[in-house]
Amino acid sequence: MNSGKLIVISGFSGAGKGTVIKRLLSEYPNYVLSISATTRKPRAGEEHGREYFFKTVDEFKSMIDNNELVEYAQYVGNYYGTPKEYVDKQLSEGKNVILEIEIQGALNIKKQFKDAVLVFITPPSATELKNRLVNRGTEDLDTIMARLRRAEEEAAGVENYDYIIINDTIDKCVFDINSVIIAESNKSNNKLDIIEDIKENLKDI
Amino acid sequence: MNSGKLIVISGFSGAGKGTVIKRLLSEYPNYVLSISATTRKPRAGEEHGREYFFKTVDEFKSMIDNNELVEYAQYVGNYYGTPKEYVDKQLSEGKNVILEIEIQGALNIKKQFKDAVLVFITPPSATELKNRLVNRGTEDLDTIMARLRRAEEEAAGVENYDYIIINDTIDKCVFDINSVIIAESNKSNNKLDIIEDIKENLKDI
Repeated sequence: MNSGKLIVISGFSGAGKGTVIKRLLSEYPNYVLSISATTRKPRAGEEHGREYFFKTVDEFKSMIDNNELVEYAQYVGNYYGTPKEYVDKQLSEGKNVILEIEIQGALNIKKQFKDAVLVFITPPSATELKNRLVNRGTEDLDTIMARLRRAEEEAAGVENYDYIIINDTIDKCVFDINSVIIAESNKSNNKLDIIEDIKENLKDI
Repeated sequence: MNSGKLIVISGFSGAGKGTVIKRLLSEYPNYVLSISATTRKPRAGEEHGREYFFKTVDEFKSMIDNNELVEYAQYVGNYYGTPKEYVDKQLSEGKNVILEIEIQGALNIKKQFKDAVLVFITPPSATELKNRLVNRGTEDLDTIMARLRRAEEEAAGVENYDYIIINDTIDKCVFDINSVIIAESNKSNNKLDIIEDIKENLKDI
C-alpha cells in the first residue's frame, strides 16, 4: 500500500481552517485528522479526544520529556503539540493525515517529514477576514482586533509553504486541497520504480 | 487574469496519451491543445490544422530559421515542432496549453518555460503496454515490437519530469492530470502577493 501524505494546514485566524478540514474529512474517506494535545481550556462543544487531547501543563511537559510529540509550540500562553504515534500509524495505513498548526510548528514538521505538504489557507481579502471573525461571533471586538493585528505574525514564514489556497468558496477550497494531495502522490520521485519495472519487463516480452 | 499553465505530456507509445488529451479537452473548458507542426505524413482521419500542421521539410526548416518554434526535434525520420505564437497567446488568455511531445523536446521546453508542468503517462505494466498497441490495430506486429524495444529510449530523462501518472483507468488518469494543474496553480510562489496585500490592508482596518 502507498503511504499516506502528511498535510499541514495553517492560515490566518478566521480563514475558515476548521470548516475546510471538517469538509475534507466528511467528503473523502482517505483523510484523518491528527488530534493535537493542548494545555488550553476547551471551548464550548469541544470534546477531549475529538478536537484535542486536553492536558495539564505537567502532563504536557511529560510528553515532551518522553519524546512523544512530533512538534510542539507555545501560542497565546498555551502549549500545542502533535502526538507522534497516531500520525505514524495512520500514514502507514495509507491515510492522509491532516495537522492544523501554526507556521512555527509546521516548519518543524517539514524538517522531520520531508514529504509533508504545507498548505496555507487565506481568505481572499483583509475585509473578508475581518467579516468572518465578526460573523463567527465567538469573540468580542477587542479580541478580533487583536487577532487581526497578529495577522502579519501569523503569516511569517509562509514563503516556505508549498501551497497557498484561497478560501473564497468552501467547495472550491476543499476541492483544491484534495487536488494538491492527488498531485503530490503523483510526483515523479514516488513513481520512478514503475517505469524501471516496465523497462525491465519489456526486455522479455 | 491568471496566466494558464503549459502542460507537456509525454509517455510510452501505447500509453493512451491521445485518448487522455481528448478527454481533458472535452471535459474541461480551460484546456487547449498546442497544435504541432510536423513533416510526417497524415494518418487516416488526421486533418491539417487540427491534429498537426503538416509541413514539407523546406517549410519546416524555414520555421526553424525564423525562430517561430518553441522547440523542435527529429523522431523516426520526421521533424516535429511547437509553433510559439499560438502557445503564448493561449497562456496569456488563461488557458492551459497541452503539448504532446517526446522527452527530448519537453526538456527543452522546460528551459524556456520554467513553469511548464512535465507529465509522463505510463500504462500500469509492460504487458498492458503491449496489449494496448496490439488492440489499437493500427500497426503490424513488427512495428509494435519495434516500438516496445524503443520504450527504454522513450523513458530516458523521465526522472526530470514533475509527475508520472499511471493510465490504468482513463477516468482516473484524466482526473489526476487536472488535479496536478490545479495544484500547480496553487503553488505558494504564485500566491505570495495575496498574502502581502492582506497584511498591508490589515494595517488600515
